[in-house]
Amino acid sequence: MAGNSTGKVFRVTTFGSSHGPALGAVIDGCPAGLKLSEEDIQRELDRRRPGTSSLTTPRGEMDRVEILSGIFEGKTDGTPIAGIVRNRDVDSASYSNLKSVPRPGHGDYTWRVRFGHYDHRGGGRGSGRVTIGHVIGGAVAKKLIGTHGIQVNAHVVQVGDIRADRVNLKLIGEYAERNPVRCADPAAARLMEKAILDAKEMGDSIGGVVEVVALGVPAGLGDPVFSKLDAELAAALMGIGAVKGVEIGMGFEVAEHHASEINDEFYISGGEIRTTTNTSGGILGGISSGMPITARIAVKPTPSISLPQRSVDLEMMEETGIEIHGRHDPCICPRVVPVAEAAVAMVLADHMIRAGFIHPTDISKKENDG
Amino acid sequence: MAGNSTGKVFRVTTFGSSHGPALGAVIDGCPAGLKLSEEDIQRELDRRRPGTSSLTTPRGEMDRVEILSGIFEGKTDGTPIAGIVRNRDVDSASYSNLKSVPRPGHGDYTWRVRFGHYDHRGGGRGSGRVTIGHVIGGAVAKKLIGTHGIQVNAHVVQVGDIRADRVNLKLIGEYAERNPVRCADPAAARLMEKAILDAKEMGDSIGGVVEVVALGVPAGLGDPVFSKLDAELAAALMGIGAVKGVEIGMGFEVAEHHASEINDEFYISGGEIRTTTNTSGGILGGISSGMPITARIAVKPTPSISLPQRSVDLEMMEETGIEIHGRHDPCICPRVVPVAEAAVAMVLADHMIRAGFIHPTDISKKENDG
Amino acid sequence: MAGNSTGKVFRVTTFGSSHGPALGAVIDGCPAGLKLSEEDIQRELDRRRPGTSSLTTPRGEMDRVEILSGIFEGKTDGTPIAGIVRNRDVDSASYSNLKSVPRPGHGDYTWRVRFGHYDHRGGGRGSGRVTIGHVIGGAVAKKLIGTHGIQVNAHVVQVGDIRADRVNLKLIGEYAERNPVRCADPAAARLMEKAILDAKEMGDSIGGVVEVVALGVPAGLGDPVFSKLDAELAAALMGIGAVKGVEIGMGFEVAEHHASEINDEFYISGGEIRTTTNTSGGILGGISSGMPITARIAVKPTPSISLPQRSVDLEMMEETGIEIHGRHDPCICPRVVPVAEAAVAMVLADHMIRAGFIHPTDISKKENDG
Amino acid sequence: MAGNSTGKVFRVTTFGSSHGPALGAVIDGCPAGLKLSEEDIQRELDRRRPGTSSLTTPRGEMDRVEILSGIFEGKTDGTPIAGIVRNRDVDSASYSNLKSVPRPGHGDYTWRVRFGHYDHRGGGRGSGRVTIGHVIGGAVAKKLIGTHGIQVNAHVVQVGDIRADRVNLKLIGEYAERNPVRCADPAAARLMEKAILDAKEMGDSIGGVVEVVALGVPAGLGDPVFSKLDAELAAALMGIGAVKGVEIGMGFEVAEHHASEINDEFYISGGEIRTTTNTSGGILGGISSGMPITARIAVKPTPSISLPQRSVDLEMMEETGIEIHGRHDPCICPRVVPVAEAAVAMVLADHMIRAGFIHPTDISKKENDG
Repeated sequence: MAGNSTGKVFRVTTFGSSHGPALGAVIDGCPAGLKLSEEDIQRELDRRRPGTSSLTTPRGEMDRVEILSGIFEGKTDGTPIAGIVRNRDVDSASYSNLKSVPRPGHGDYTWRVRFGHYDHRGGGRGSGRVTIGHVIGGAVAKKLIGTHGIQVNAHVVQVGDIRADRVNLKLIGEYAERNPVRCADPAAARLMEKAILDAKEMGDSIGGVVEVVALGVPAGLGDPVFSKLDAELAAALMGIGAVKGVEIGMGFEVAEHHASEINDEFYISGGEIRTTTNTSGGILGGISSGMPITARIAVKPTPSISLPQRSVDLEMMEETGIEIHGRHDPCICPRVVPVAEAAVAMVLADHMIRAGFIHPTDISKKENDG
Repeated sequence: MAGNSTGKVFRVTTFGSSHGPALGAVIDGCPAGLKLSEEDIQRELDRRRPGTSSLTTPRGEMDRVEILSGIFEGKTDGTPIAGIVRNRDVDSASYSNLKSVPRPGHGDYTWRVRFGHYDHRGGGRGSGRVTIGHVIGGAVAKKLIGTHGIQVNAHVVQVGDIRADRVNLKLIGEYAERNPVRCADPAAARLMEKAILDAKEMGDSIGGVVEVVALGVPAGLGDPVFSKLDAELAAALMGIGAVKGVEIGMGFEVAEHHASEINDEFYISGGEIRTTTNTSGGILGGISSGMPITARIAVKPTPSISLPQRSVDLEMMEETGIEIHGRHDPCICPRVVPVAEAAVAMVLADHMIRAGFIHPTDISKKENDG
Repeated sequence: MAGNSTGKVFRVTTFGSSHGPALGAVIDGCPAGLKLSEEDIQRELDRRRPGTSSLTTPRGEMDRVEILSGIFEGKTDGTPIAGIVRNRDVDSASYSNLKSVPRPGHGDYTWRVRFGHYDHRGGGRGSGRVTIGHVIGGAVAKKLIGTHGIQVNAHVVQVGDIRADRVNLKLIGEYAERNPVRCADPAAARLMEKAILDAKEMGDSIGGVVEVVALGVPAGLGDPVFSKLDAELAAALMGIGAVKGVEIGMGFEVAEHHASEINDEFYISGGEIRTTTNTSGGILGGISSGMPITARIAVKPTPSISLPQRSVDLEMMEETGIEIHGRHDPCICPRVVPVAEAAVAMVLADHMIRAGFIHPTDISKKENDG
Repeated sequence: MAGNSTGKVFRVTTFGSSHGPALGAVIDGCPAGLKLSEEDIQRELDRRRPGTSSLTTPRGEMDRVEILSGIFEGKTDGTPIAGIVRNRDVDSASYSNLKSVPRPGHGDYTWRVRFGHYDHRGGGRGSGRVTIGHVIGGAVAKKLIGTHGIQVNAHVVQVGDIRADRVNLKLIGEYAERNPVRCADPAAARLMEKAILDAKEMGDSIGGVVEVVALGVPAGLGDPVFSKLDAELAAALMGIGAVKGVEIGMGFEVAEHHASEINDEFYISGGEIRTTTNTSGGILGGISSGMPITARIAVKPTPSISLPQRSVDLEMMEETGIEIHGRHDPCICPRVVPVAEAAVAMVLADHMIRAGFIHPTDISKKENDG
């Protein structure tokens, strides 16, 4: 079954595996007239790229994007935008002993059950490298919704039991990029960095929480009842590898409250409808309210660790030990940040067109001018 | 934009509003040959129906389903199954004063922004009554996946700060139906009931957490990378009204752990691959692993409360107070239980066909017998 | 597999069979604010209804539509519009002897192979009654595109070897309704009527050609390269029962020409781009050109005839004779007219939203007013 | 709007323009375990390639395909297969004078209206080169359905007023490849070749008809009522550039007949249900019958001709003459042959999975083995 596309109108299809020739994305449904260059995409890929700090895997990939179609004279022309990144630093040898022994916590076993013939090298298409496609799609989405003043930023708000203090939503993007953890609270960032390096030292890895914030989203995005904005954000975020939970607004804390405590009350400010609080995270009845959209995702510790673990040899059908000696991230949260932004940006771009805020074929057009 | 359908192959489209003539669902893509009766659907609707205990709204609806198509001689015939429920006890008068004043925490404001001309009565299609469509679709889905031994049960595991003890997964369904809270832990159920009645007494409402468990799901369901099983479950669950968070398996707790603590290790039991723990909630790499699927959702307190709140008159564009005197549930969790089961069952039915476990047109056929 | 929906944004799902309780349609994605009543739909259903002349089957169905949802205060409210028609004059006895003997030229055999358990009565969902769903969807589509001045009319242009003379495109709708054949050329209509009655007299049936014309369609509709306007029109028209060919513009005659003879040349008229001829039928490169859209469909003679034919008993797996004594149309073309209009109107409504000419959620809105 | 994908389960997305860096396709939903090499695709591309005879444009493209993903150890692995072809012999200069003057019979004008910013060079994505994507997708589809014995062959049956004699369906593929016209009747082929060269000599072009035949298709493919096999074939074929008509089986000739003359009667042969004739072209009620599937398409003369024509300068909004001096095919029919095969093969591959004949994820699996 085809599952490698996302979005209804702004539709992104991705392809490629960890150790194959290339990875990439085709963005179909981006209206014509949007200024777009390879640099716009490269900037986001560089944020996702491995090897940029001691907190990430040392796999030495430059991840240079090449655009194959969809751009004419520096602008989108309404046809599909295809972007590819070639794999360079492929080290398949590390994976030869894993061919029939699935790594605990990874999709090796389930992919093999599903597809039979499965490219196990580097996790194949189950690898985190697959998010290169997400980031290419997200970079185009960011550019598109940026024309309407929408900004999407993510940051790491928890690593292990270390929690960041809250930061003004408008500063998250800038502050988070100042440290390798991508935590907007500098004091917490230092503690988080230490926790991650400790885990690395032990041959282990550690989990965390990433928050995504979208500012400037107009009221009125979301198709009830099965394509609500929160439902599609949840799918986009839960679908990122290693994510085990998604919250919108106050999230699980709502369970402990009475409505009288957490209902967001309406008021008028400068002729606009606002709410006094934003426990709903900018989404009411599945439709954006015009308040900031906030979501948090739980990211599990990278399952690839060098400590000895128990597994099963699927050929021999016998239990066996496993030690994993590839190159892995001791905490994947910092690199989830640009991927989570991309996931949210793609959903918003799709809904901005679906809700009629962006013209479906030509961004310079208003409706009915045709 | 069309947003009232869910599923790719087992596809459910719903319609209807709180105060219109009828609500219903069309199930397209259910294979032929499945035994199905109105009673199969009625049983699930009765679990969702209001007025069955002091914990629910007294709106007196019998919610009788009528099947209009798709059944021949007691079995599905491969054509769309349409089921409808007529609204009877409509009390639109309570809503006349709400026409231009959106209720805090509800979708009134956002639906109005989106659609302009909006049926505000009883929340229109933003009402909880819309889940009648979910339950009709879910009842057919349950019947279909039941032919392969899959069972989906939900129960309330938290109300306010009261948390239930864990119960053997196989007993959840039976135990939860023994009390009006639908909590499988009877001691916690009594405390929860009191907390709900206390909230009702105060004209307030209270939130909670519902857990859904699917047993008997084979390994191999889920289409990576954008239609993963966990991503689609997250969308289905987050899309239920009042839900603000979704967790799979260990959920947000993974953030506090090292991989060495929570990686599920593989072993062999009776010739089957199992894992020693199930922190992944039965899904690895977006594909089911054969272990039980577990998900939890955060349910906010019903936003309709009789206590005075602040809002805005959208016609006058001035701030105003609001008091809501309809009939509402002081805690919606017990009635979310059958809806959450329906949501999960529809996703599983769709994936069982998509993954080739159930023949797409004729349940009596094996592939290639054609 | 789900196949009972059509359209991407203006999306129509239909259900129901010839001898089941009811047939109907759910229209999802119609924007809010469109004036719509049961009469708008009934008018079109009455044109499709049997028993209105000696040329049609005498099955006595009134085909009254009931709208169950989606209308509030006389206008659409952006939620799904469900309309149903109950079957009344069901005569299943005529079909009992056909249970295991497929009628030549019908889908009995293929539906049975596909679904195993198949409602053979009256052809089940393979019956022409299923176009009630098309007409309900088409009536809403016509109303929607009518707000932008688009009109869709069809007429019978050939029955057997009798061909109608060409008529001014603007008069087709009016002229065609003046005779039971629905042929806009009155002289040809008389000959066609005689040919149909002759066929009826012989216990036989006769084929024909129906032409559909859409006036007022703006330039710019159609999504290349796989969702072109002509491709989607072809699917919609070929999908009508009994249709074996579809032509756009000049159709098969283009094969006999040189480009210099049939290329439509551009000129300017009143500030608008027009073409001197319209061999392309209003579609160039899969996108509407602003010229009238013209399509023709080949309709085979109704396969149900009372003359003796050869078939096979599928239970006994032996050859046998078959005589069909139900109530059938000696030429289905007149009743295909409203169905073909509906099919084209649904495609145009979908594309008008997809191309940004009609706002996706609120017809009173221009883009970016949100 | 996204329109560059086709198929529901076997889903092909294409990209690229005539004068951009590359063209290509991503095939998502091809099950794992299918033997596939670049040669399988190259063979089909070579049949579509220009410059192979005096009947085709001399544009000198080798059209070498590179597979970027989806193949592991010589077999598909269930992940998307991306194939690209780089443009080499780009001659954009010929098109500079066409920037604001749309070519009659081409999509230049309509693409410009739709997208505003439009890559006019070589027709952009409206160019016939775009069918490279179709052929890549079709080559994979052919390989997949070939594992079940299905063969798809096309041939030219008419050029201008020259019609080919009928040929045994099994020999079409072999015979058609013996001459540059791709007509299986060698006598007609010689006349057709002369007619094409005459048109070329005059600076003109000529139309024709291509027939596609699929052998070995099992009974039971097709999803009624809106995704019928004939409806989806019609869309796939009408969507090929220059096609203005599609017929299934007897096509438009059915209009002239009585049912008693053309109903296909059933009989039994070797335990299989067959029909004595095949006027229905292998499809009854929208579902395949097990008889050969036959379709014909009307192909208009290539609109690019060097003879002077009238057009309009869209910048100046004034009428003007146009002469086209690029490199063009005097009759596109021979090169439509592999494209039509590809279009049909993609539809069949999709339906073979949708109908349960091919396992959706692993071709070595039978259903329920999971």
